Amino acid sequence: MPSIHTDKAFEQDLRDLRERLLAMGAKVETLIANSVRALTDRDSALAENVIKSDKDVNRLEVEIDDLCRRILALRQPAASDLRLITTALKIVTDLERIGDLAVNIAERSIDLSQVPPLAPYIDTPRLAEQAQQQVKKALDSFVSNDVVKAEEVLKGDDLLDALFLKIFNELLAYMMEDSKNIRRATALMFIAKHLERIGDHAMNVAEMVIYMVRGKDIRHPQSRNIPQE
Amino acid sequence: MPSIHTDKAFEQDLRDLRERLLAMGAKVETLIANSVRALTDRDSALAENVIKSDKDVNRLEVEIDDLCRRILALRQPAASDLRLITTALKIVTDLERIGDLAVNIAERSIDLSQVPPLAPYIDTPRLAEQAQQQVKKALDSFVSNDVVKAEEVLKGDDLLDALFLKIFNELLAYMMEDSKNIRRATALMFIAKHLERIGDHAMNVAEMVIYMVRGKDIRHPQSRNIPQE
Repeated sequence: MPSIHTDKAFEQDLRDLRERLLAMGAKVETLIANSVRALTDRDSALAENVIKSDKDVNRLEVEIDDLCRRILALRQPAASDLRLITTALKIVTDLERIGDLAVNIAERSIDLSQVPPLAPYIDTPRLAEQAQQQVKKALDSFVSNDVVKAEEVLKGDDLLDALFLKIFNELLAYMMEDSKNIRRATALMFIAKHLERIGDHAMNVAEMVIYMVRGKDIRHPQSRNIPQE
Repeated sequence: MPSIHTDKAFEQDLRDLRERLLAMGAKVETLIANSVRALTDRDSALAENVIKSDKDVNRLEVEIDDLCRRILALRQPAASDLRLITTALKIVTDLERIGDLAVNIAERSIDLSQVPPLAPYIDTPRLAEQAQQQVKKALDSFVSNDVVKAEEVLKGDDLLDALFLKIFNELLAYMMEDSKNIRRATALMFIAKHLERIGDHAMNVAEMVIYMVRGKDIRHPQSRNIPQE
């Protein structure tokens, strides 16, 4: 049976883990917001800053991975604690990928700032804000074991998909109208796609949280409901 | 000290894990190949089959995750064994995402099969084949602890990026030439992007393998080499 001392150390490890994940999440949210602000404000310096800051996200990934392995080795957690750590290992990968997507957006923003702007950015800032909120909510659901919040993230993804489709169709119309718009509209399409994919990562996190709390896997309901031929 | 019996059981667990990961990898490779064959052969039935088969990939993800957690709980591995299991937990997520990307390609293939074909598919089949090989090589490097092979994957990514850029520019030219090409060329661009992203997942796996074997993290060299301001 673990001693009280060990329990306390374990509790401290878990607090540490949650804090670092939240710090990484906050960093990633800032990258998303700044990458899109760099786009709309045509601010290459801000975009460069996003690209540079991604190294902080990467460092946090390495640190959190190490912390998870240390906890597994030293505390040998079982049941729900084990699920917590293995979930954290996966969440950290999603957060790192979100950072990469923000870097992709920043890189395209720099390209776009070299050419005259293509009319408005339509709903891109709104899509970015929505994606950012989904990431925040998903991570909050993890640190607070909150299934209801995680389910809100799953529901919220429809809005992101709808916004993406709206932006996609409007950009398509710009391209049809004038071939001079094509290159810039294509870049904006990829940016919108990156934001939609950030939303997918938030959804992945939320699904893992629901599994972690309930101990049942909801990630792929179709893999159980459909009989195997 | 663990008994010989426990060691043997642990060895069997690891063999089981490797076999399942290879099975999942093979499944995923087939999905990539078939999704692009569905595109070039305008074969919606094959595309539907890819979409349906993704549930097998998802089921394998859930099973391998469970196996990893069972090994962690029962065997309490340390050092390199612990790194192996935590790496497997992450690799499985990459493989599952590759399956999702193949589904996205299959879905777009169905849309494209409803309209007249847009000239040739340029290097798309070659990009797909290259992406598929990268996935196979990355996974092989994991099961055989082969750092040299993992490094080949990292080097191989340049070819994928070059192929993507070539396809992207050629599709852009089609769009400029005739606005009737825009919608179809856009769909093909997203397909090429999905394939390039599959290559990124293979690279992620290779980086994790190098870390697993060497015990040093190469994933983000810039997060150590650049001094923090």
